[in-house]
Amino acid sequence: MATEATNGAAAAEINGAPAEKAVTFSSLKPQLFVESSKATDAVAFYKAAFGAEEVNRVSHPKRKADQELPILLSAEIKLGNSSILISDLTDDCTAPVKSVGTGLVFCLETEDIEGAVDKAIKAGAVAEGEISEGEGACCGGRVGKVKDPYGIVWLICTPAKKCVNVEA
Amino acid sequence: MATEATNGAAAAEINGAPAEKAVTFSSLKPQLFVESSKATDAVAFYKAAFGAEEVNRVSHPKRKADQELPILLSAEIKLGNSSILISDLTDDCTAPVKSVGTGLVFCLETEDIEGAVDKAIKAGAVAEGEISEGEGACCGGRVGKVKDPYGIVWLICTPAKKCVNVEA
Repeated sequence: MATEATNGAAAAEINGAPAEKAVTFSSLKPQLFVESSKATDAVAFYKAAFGAEEVNRVSHPKRKADQELPILLSAEIKLGNSSILISDLTDDCTAPVKSVGTGLVFCLETEDIEGAVDKAIKAGAVAEGEISEGEGACCGGRVGKVKDPYGIVWLICTPAKKCVNVEA
Repeated sequence: MATEATNGAAAAEINGAPAEKAVTFSSLKPQLFVESSKATDAVAFYKAAFGAEEVNRVSHPKRKADQELPILLSAEIKLGNSSILISDLTDDCTAPVKSVGTGLVFCLETEDIEGAVDKAIKAGAVAEGEISEGEGACCGGRVGKVKDPYGIVWLICTPAKKCVNVEA
Protein backbone atom coordinates (compact mmCIF):
# COMPACT_ATOMS: atom_id res chain seq x y z
CA MET A 1 0.00 0.00 0.00
CA ALA A 2 1.36 3.36 -0.94
CA THR A 3 -0.13 4.90 2.17
CA GLU A 4 2.28 2.91 4.32
CA ALA A 5 5.08 4.92 2.87
CA THR A 6 3.85 8.07 4.57
CA ASN A 7 3.95 6.68 8.07
CA GLY A 8 6.89 8.41 9.67
CA ALA A 9 10.58 7.81 9.84
CA ALA A 10 10.65 4.12 8.94
CA ALA A 11 8.87 4.67 5.63
CA ALA A 12 12.04 4.98 3.59
CA GLU A 13 12.88 1.37 4.50
CA ILE A 14 9.73 -0.06 2.97
CA ASN A 15 10.53 -1.82 -0.29
CA GLY A 16 8.21 -1.48 -3.21
CA ALA A 17 6.46 1.65 -1.95
CA PRO A 18 7.40 5.28 -2.63
CA ALA A 19 10.06 6.20 -0.07
CA GLU A 20 9.55 9.25 2.10
CA LYS A 21 12.06 11.95 1.28
CA ALA A 22 14.78 12.05 3.92
CA VAL A 23 15.06 15.32 5.82
CA THR A 24 18.60 16.31 6.67
CA PHE A 25 19.78 19.06 8.98
CA SER A 26 22.97 20.98 8.41
CA SER A 27 23.24 22.27 11.95
CA LEU A 28 21.64 22.65 15.34
CA LYS A 29 22.10 25.92 17.19
CA PRO A 30 20.59 26.87 20.51
CA GLN A 31 19.23 30.42 20.29
CA LEU A 32 19.11 32.45 23.48
CA PHE A 33 16.81 35.45 23.70
CA VAL A 34 17.75 38.16 26.15
CA GLU A 35 16.00 41.36 27.21
CA SER A 36 16.43 43.98 24.48
CA SER A 37 19.07 45.32 24.03
CA LYS A 38 21.30 43.20 26.23
CA ALA A 39 22.38 40.80 23.48
CA THR A 40 25.55 42.78 22.83
CA ASP A 41 26.40 42.55 26.52
CA ALA A 42 25.64 38.84 26.50
CA VAL A 43 28.01 38.23 23.60
CA ALA A 44 30.73 40.14 25.46
CA PHE A 45 30.03 38.07 28.56
CA TYR A 46 30.33 34.74 26.75
CA LYS A 47 33.58 35.89 25.17
CA ALA A 48 35.00 36.79 28.57
CA ALA A 49 33.55 33.83 30.47
CA PHE A 50 34.13 31.01 28.02
CA GLY A 51 36.40 32.43 25.35
CA ALA A 52 33.58 32.27 22.82
CA GLU A 53 34.39 33.52 19.34
CA GLU A 54 31.90 35.72 17.50
CA VAL A 55 31.51 34.41 13.96
CA ASN A 56 28.47 36.31 12.70
CA ARG A 57 26.35 39.30 13.68
CA VAL A 58 23.09 40.38 12.08
CA SER A 59 21.61 43.64 13.32
CA HIS A 60 18.02 44.69 12.76
CA PRO A 61 17.87 46.46 9.38
CA LYS A 62 15.36 49.13 10.42
CA ARG A 63 15.80 49.63 14.12
CA LYS A 64 19.43 50.57 13.98
CA ALA A 65 19.09 54.25 13.15
CA ASP A 66 16.68 55.30 15.88
CA GLN A 67 18.12 53.31 18.75
CA GLU A 68 21.12 54.05 20.86
CA LEU A 69 22.19 50.43 20.49
CA PRO A 70 21.33 48.43 17.37
CA ILE A 71 18.93 45.57 17.95
CA LEU A 72 20.72 42.27 17.47
CA LEU A 73 18.64 39.88 15.39
CA SER A 74 21.30 37.33 16.12
CA ALA A 75 24.95 37.05 16.90
CA GLU A 76 26.51 33.66 16.40
CA ILE A 77 29.22 32.66 18.84
CA LYS A 78 31.34 29.53 18.70
CA LEU A 79 32.22 27.46 21.73
CA GLY A 80 34.24 24.37 20.93
CA ASN A 81 32.76 23.08 17.70
CA SER A 82 29.25 24.33 18.48
CA SER A 83 27.47 27.60 17.88
CA ILE A 84 24.97 29.52 19.98
CA LEU A 85 22.83 32.36 18.65
CA ILE A 86 22.22 35.34 20.93
CA SER A 87 19.29 37.59 20.08
CA ASP A 88 17.55 40.62 21.46
CA LEU A 89 13.94 39.92 22.31
CA THR A 90 11.88 42.35 20.21
CA ASP A 91 8.17 42.86 19.64
CA ASP A 92 8.34 42.48 15.87
CA CYS A 93 10.62 39.46 15.95
CA THR A 94 7.47 37.42 15.59
CA ALA A 95 8.84 34.04 14.64
CA PRO A 96 10.24 32.74 17.88
CA VAL A 97 9.09 35.11 20.55
CA LYS A 98 5.46 34.28 21.11
CA SER A 99 6.10 30.79 22.43
CA VAL A 100 9.42 31.28 24.09
CA GLY A 101 8.89 30.49 27.73
CA THR A 102 12.45 29.78 28.64
CA GLY A 103 14.20 32.34 26.47
CA LEU A 104 15.90 29.47 24.69
CA VAL A 105 14.91 27.63 21.53
CA PHE A 106 16.74 25.29 19.19
CA CYS A 107 17.34 26.29 15.59
CA LEU A 108 17.58 23.37 13.22
CA GLU A 109 18.86 24.37 9.82
CA THR A 110 17.59 22.56 6.74
CA GLU A 111 16.75 23.25 3.12
CA ASP A 112 13.50 21.30 3.49
CA ILE A 113 11.48 23.26 6.01
CA GLU A 114 8.08 21.83 5.04
CA GLY A 115 9.38 18.26 5.12
CA ALA A 116 11.04 18.74 8.49
CA VAL A 117 7.99 20.39 10.06
CA ASP A 118 5.67 17.69 8.70
CA LYS A 119 7.86 14.90 10.00
CA ALA A 120 8.12 16.47 13.46
CA ILE A 121 4.35 16.90 13.66
CA LYS A 122 3.78 13.30 12.61
CA ALA A 123 6.09 12.25 15.43
CA GLY A 124 4.11 14.21 18.01
CA ALA A 125 5.31 17.80 17.91
CA VAL A 126 2.76 20.61 17.73
CA ALA A 127 2.93 23.30 15.04
CA GLU A 128 3.20 26.85 16.34
CA GLY A 129 1.86 29.09 13.61
CA GLU A 130 2.63 29.04 9.92
CA ILE A 131 5.99 28.98 8.20
CA SER A 132 7.01 32.63 8.02
CA GLU A 133 9.38 34.48 5.81
CA GLY A 134 11.37 37.69 5.63
CA GLU A 135 12.75 40.01 8.23
CA GLY A 136 10.17 39.08 10.85
CA ALA A 137 11.84 35.69 11.00
CA CYS A 138 14.76 36.14 13.33
CA CYS A 139 17.36 34.45 11.21
CA GLY A 140 16.35 36.42 8.15
CA GLY A 141 15.10 33.41 6.19
CA ARG A 142 12.11 31.08 6.26
CA VAL A 143 11.19 29.65 9.63
CA GLY A 144 8.80 26.95 10.74
CA LYS A 145 8.15 26.46 14.42
CA VAL A 146 7.12 23.41 16.43
CA LYS A 147 6.93 22.66 20.13
CA ASP A 148 7.92 19.16 21.19
CA PRO A 149 6.26 17.06 23.93
CA TYR A 150 9.00 18.10 26.36
CA GLY A 151 8.35 21.82 26.07
CA ILE A 152 11.23 22.69 23.76
CA VAL A 153 10.51 25.03 20.85
CA TRP A 154 12.30 24.18 17.63
CA LEU A 155 12.77 26.69 14.83
CA ILE A 156 13.17 24.84 11.55
CA CYS A 157 14.93 27.42 9.42
CA THR A 158 16.94 27.99 6.28
CA PRO A 159 20.67 27.59 6.80
CA ALA A 160 22.54 30.51 8.29
CA LYS A 161 24.55 31.21 5.15
CA LYS A 162 21.43 32.95 3.89
CA CYS A 163 21.10 34.97 7.06
CA VAL A 164 24.25 36.97 6.44
CA ASN A 165 22.51 38.57 3.47
CA VAL A 166 20.39 40.63 5.84
CA GLU A 167 21.82 44.12 5.81
CA ALA A 168 23.33 45.14 9.12
CA MET B 1 52.07 44.66 36.60
CA ALA B 2 51.54 40.98 37.17
CA THR B 3 48.03 41.62 38.45
CA GLU B 4 46.98 42.83 35.04
CA ALA B 5 47.51 39.32 33.74
CA THR B 6 44.63 37.97 35.81
CA ASN B 7 42.04 40.25 34.32
CA GLY B 8 40.00 38.02 32.08
CA ALA B 9 40.27 36.85 28.53
CA ALA B 10 42.67 39.45 27.21
CA ALA B 11 45.31 38.58 29.79
CA ALA B 12 47.17 36.13 27.60
CA GLU B 13 47.87 38.94 25.15
CA ILE B 14 49.76 41.08 27.65
CA ASN B 15 53.48 40.91 26.94
CA GLY B 16 55.95 40.78 29.78
CA ALA B 17 53.47 39.52 32.40
CA PRO B 18 52.61 35.94 33.27
CA ALA B 19 49.94 34.84 30.82
CA GLU B 20 46.70 33.40 32.16
CA LYS B 21 46.36 29.76 31.21
CA ALA B 22 43.97 29.41 28.31
CA VAL B 23 40.87 27.34 28.98
CA THR B 24 39.71 25.32 26.02
CA PHE B 25 36.47 23.46 25.56
CA SER B 26 36.19 20.29 23.53
CA SER B 27 32.45 20.49 23.11
CA LEU B 28 29.20 22.16 24.03
CA LYS B 29 26.12 20.00 24.53
CA PRO B 30 22.70 21.16 25.60
CA GLN B 31 21.36 18.77 28.25
CA LEU B 32 17.60 18.38 28.50
CA PHE B 33 16.08 17.00 31.70
CA VAL B 34 12.71 15.33 31.41
CA GLU B 35 10.37 13.86 34.01
CA SER B 36 11.70 10.48 35.16
CA SER B 37 11.56 8.09 33.37
CA LYS B 38 10.51 9.74 30.12
CA ALA B 39 14.05 10.15 28.77
CA THR B 40 13.82 6.93 26.78
CA ASP B 41 10.59 8.16 25.21
CA ALA B 42 12.20 11.51 24.48
CA VAL B 43 15.11 9.87 22.67
CA ALA B 44 12.65 7.86 20.58
CA PHE B 45 10.72 11.05 19.81
CA TYR B 46 13.80 12.95 18.63
CA LYS B 47 14.76 10.00 16.43
CA ALA B 48 11.31 9.96 14.84
CA ALA B 49 10.85 13.73 14.64
CA PHE B 50 14.28 14.86 13.51
CA GLY B 51 16.11 11.69 12.52
CA ALA B 52 18.43 12.05 15.51
CA GLU B 53 21.05 9.34 15.93
CA GLU B 54 21.74 7.92 19.38
CA VAL B 55 25.49 7.79 19.92
CA ASN B 56 25.79 7.05 23.64
CA ARG B 57 23.61 5.91 26.51
CA VAL B 58 24.54 5.81 30.18
CA SER B 59 21.99 4.26 32.53
CA HIS B 60 22.00 4.71 36.28
CA PRO B 61 24.29 2.03 37.76
CA LYS B 62 22.16 1.33 40.85
CA ARG B 63 18.61 2.14 39.90
CA LYS B 64 18.38 -0.26 37.00
CA ALA B 65 17.51 -3.45 38.90
CA ASP B 66 14.56 -2.22 40.93
CA GLN B 67 12.85 -0.08 38.32
CA GLU B 68 10.68 -1.13 35.47
CA LEU B 69 12.59 1.23 33.20
CA PRO B 70 16.25 1.99 33.86
CA ILE B 71 16.94 5.60 34.78
CA LEU B 72 18.81 7.34 31.99
CA LEU B 73 21.71 9.39 33.35
CA SER B 74 22.18 10.62 29.83
CA ALA B 75 21.64 9.58 26.27
CA GLU B 76 23.57 11.51 23.66
CA ILE B 77 21.82 12.08 20.35
CA LYS B 78 23.32 13.68 17.26
CA LEU B 79 21.48 16.17 15.10
CA GLY B 80 23.54 17.50 12.24
CA ASN B 81 27.00 17.96 13.70
CA SER B 82 25.73 18.73 17.18
CA SER B 83 24.85 16.61 20.19
CA ILE B 84 22.10 16.92 22.77
CA LEU B 85 22.04 15.01 26.04
CA ILE B 86 18.70 13.72 27.30
CA SER B 87 18.47 12.80 30.98
CA ASP B 88 15.89 11.60 33.44
CA LEU B 89 15.38 14.05 36.26
CA THR B 90 16.21 12.14 39.45
CA ASP B 91 16.48 13.11 43.11
CA ASP B 92 20.04 11.91 43.53
CA CYS B 93 21.27 13.45 40.31
CA THR B 94 22.47 16.32 42.44
CA ALA B 95 24.79 18.16 40.11
CA PRO B 96 22.43 19.80 37.68
CA VAL B 97 18.99 19.39 39.12
CA LYS B 98 18.81 21.83 41.98
CA SER B 99 19.14 24.89 39.82
CA VAL B 100 17.47 23.70 36.68
CA GLY B 101 14.56 25.99 36.19
CA THR B 102 14.05 25.42 32.52
CA GLY B 103 14.92 21.73 32.32
CA LEU B 104 17.76 22.65 30.03
CA VAL B 105 21.38 23.38 30.83
CA PHE B 106 24.54 23.62 28.74
CA CYS B 107 27.36 21.14 29.27
CA LEU B 108 30.76 22.52 28.39
CA GLU B 109 33.41 19.85 28.30
CA THR B 110 36.95 20.69 29.33
CA GLU B 111 39.94 19.08 31.06
CA ASP B 112 40.39 22.24 33.17
CA ILE B 113 37.24 22.48 35.26
CA GLU B 114 38.70 24.73 37.96
CA GLY B 115 40.19 27.11 35.37
CA ALA B 116 36.97 27.30 33.43
CA VAL B 117 34.80 27.88 36.50
CA ASP B 118 37.17 30.56 37.81
CA LYS B 119 37.21 32.38 34.51
CA ALA B 120 33.43 32.33 34.21
CA ILE B 121 33.00 33.68 37.74
CA LYS B 122 35.51 36.47 37.08
CA ALA B 123 33.43 37.40 34.04
CA GLY B 124 30.24 37.65 36.08
CA ALA B 125 28.79 34.15 36.39
CA VAL B 126 27.72 32.90 39.83
CA ALA B 127 28.99 29.59 41.23
CA GLU B 128 26.29 27.07 42.09
CA GLY B 129 27.77 24.79 44.72
CA GLU B 130 31.13 23.07 44.70
CA ILE B 131 32.76 21.02 41.99
CA SER B 132 31.35 17.53 42.50
CA GLU B 133 32.56 14.12 41.50
CA GLY B 134 31.33 10.60 40.97
CA GLU B 135 27.95 9.18 40.14
CA GLY B 136 26.05 12.11 41.63
CA ALA B 137 27.39 14.15 38.76
CA CYS B 138 25.14 13.38 35.84
CA CYS B 139 27.81 12.77 33.27
CA GLY B 140 29.69 10.44 35.61
CA GLY B 141 32.73 12.68 35.87
CA ARG B 142 33.65 15.90 37.65
CA VAL B 143 31.22 18.76 37.27
CA GLY B 144 31.36 22.42 38.19
CA LYS B 145 28.25 24.52 37.86
CA VAL B 146 27.73 28.23 37.23
CA LYS B 147 24.72 30.35 36.39
CA ASP B 148 25.27 33.19 33.95
CA PRO B 149 23.70 36.67 34.11
CA TYR B 150 21.08 35.56 31.56
CA GLY B 151 19.73 32.69 33.63
CA ILE B 152 21.47 29.86 31.82
CA VAL B 153 23.08 27.13 33.94
CA TRP B 154 26.37 25.82 32.62
CA LEU B 155 27.82 22.50 33.70
CA ILE B 156 31.59 22.57 33.27
CA CYS B 157 32.43 18.89 33.08
CA THR B 158 35.03 16.36 32.11
CA PRO B 159 34.79 15.26 28.47
CA ALA B 160 32.20 12.64 27.63
CA LYS B 161 34.76 10.00 26.67
CA LYS B 162 35.14 9.41 30.40
CA CYS B 163 31.40 9.15 30.90
CA VAL B 164 31.11 5.90 28.97
CA ASN B 165 33.10 4.22 31.73
CA VAL B 166 30.05 4.41 33.98
CA GLU B 167 28.58 0.91 34.08
CA ALA B 168 25.18 0.66 32.50
